[in-house]
Amino acid sequence: MGERKLFTCFSPALYEADVHAGSLVVIIDILRATSAICTAFANGVKTIIPVEGIDEAREYKNKGYLVAAERDGYVLDFADFGNSPFNFSREKVEGKTIVYSTTNGTRLIALASSAGMISMGSFLNISALSEWITEHDSDVMLFCSGWKNRFNLEDSICAGAIADKIMNTGLYSTICDSTLAAMDLWSLARNDVRGYIEKAAQRTRLRDKGLDDCIGYCMQNDITDKIPVVKKGVLINIKDY
Amino acid sequence: MGERKLFTCFSPALYEADVHAGSLVVIIDILRATSAICTAFANGVKTIIPVEGIDEAREYKNKGYLVAAERDGYVLDFADFGNSPFNFSREKVEGKTIVYSTTNGTRLIALASSAGMISMGSFLNISALSEWITEHDSDVMLFCSGWKNRFNLEDSICAGAIADKIMNTGLYSTICDSTLAAMDLWSLARNDVRGYIEKAAQRTRLRDKGLDDCIGYCMQNDITDKIPVVKKGVLINIKDY
Repeated sequence: MGERKLFTCFSPALYEADVHAGSLVVIIDILRATSAICTAFANGVKTIIPVEGIDEAREYKNKGYLVAAERDGYVLDFADFGNSPFNFSREKVEGKTIVYSTTNGTRLIALASSAGMISMGSFLNISALSEWITEHDSDVMLFCSGWKNRFNLEDSICAGAIADKIMNTGLYSTICDSTLAAMDLWSLARNDVRGYIEKAAQRTRLRDKGLDDCIGYCMQNDITDKIPVVKKGVLINIKDY
Repeated sequence: MGERKLFTCFSPALYEADVHAGSLVVIIDILRATSAICTAFANGVKTIIPVEGIDEAREYKNKGYLVAAERDGYVLDFADFGNSPFNFSREKVEGKTIVYSTTNGTRLIALASSAGMISMGSFLNISALSEWITEHDSDVMLFCSGWKNRFNLEDSICAGAIADKIMNTGLYSTICDSTLAAMDLWSLARNDVRGYIEKAAQRTRLRDKGLDDCIGYCMQNDITDKIPVVKKGVLINIKDY
């Protein structure tokens, strides 16, 4: 067992900023924010500016930016498109700066501001992300977005999958029960991730809004080796850091 | 699937009092508070007065009450005994009123004050408790104590075990991911609960303080059919309600 410590947090309401000061933090919100962000970088977006409020998103739109903005799954009228990963196609985003309206995402980034580095994780970039994590001699915090402060299954199993990969290197130890639970849930989900997620509350919410077409896509491993990281409040690919 | 809803909460920091107004709330803190409380009732205690502060516990001691009081696992000097379930023997507690100092326990009871009924759960009373729960046409909240607001494994698997029993009646439904996760963790733990708990952080903490002698005891099913419930701030057996 190594000296680096691995933690998992199941909800923004449980985040302990002092414990994770200087750590490498991975924000996980796979249905759909971090999957959409990984997709945008896979398709060549240059920068994503996460903004909190609708007014702020509208101001960027008025300045000529491309804006992705939803509330509760519905595209806002002034926005160019919503938050589905399918919207971030190469023809729309390549080489561009995009504004992404996400109340929860900006909150998590703010909460994690004591971190040494903040990155975005999903199944879509899991292998590249995990390998990149292990290149850093840092403690790691897998920060699940949850839903309205509640624990959720989909982010937890993704955290478990990342934890499984990086614990297997032997460089990390954990006495964090959340990490152990995430890995155990992943052990149950791993052979049929799509099937496992069928029972998740968010899967039902997305279906009820007709937004569930992306679920199978979001459960795919390794469509990209891009690693979105936060630099001065904006998201860039780690290679541009 | 029935009309009653089942929820689980992994930490006091995640408790939503408005959602659970009128519900039947089960507080779970198996290492060691709720196991000690169930043991005390099994051994004939009449009433347990949960108090928050050390000063309040000392005042009760000065008035002649039996006082169980610890901080971080160490017995306070004025107390009659600590919080290990082994202290609540029949010869010490039968027919008596005991004061139990527990910062976290009083906090959970206060948080759950919107509930229709607050009970105490552990493996020690799991079958009687689960049967009693299903006799009530109420929504249910399995409220895990956690540790300093963190998720913990031992309370989560106990919640999963209770959830498993009451979901099997067909009277309940759940769209609560925490409940689904607790049941999944229980499915991994159930064939060797003692072995499963070996990895839990609290197991290590108790061992480091020499307080782990009660772990095997706390993992036993059904040593009692007593169900401690809160009435006007004190704990009594449901039969005396």
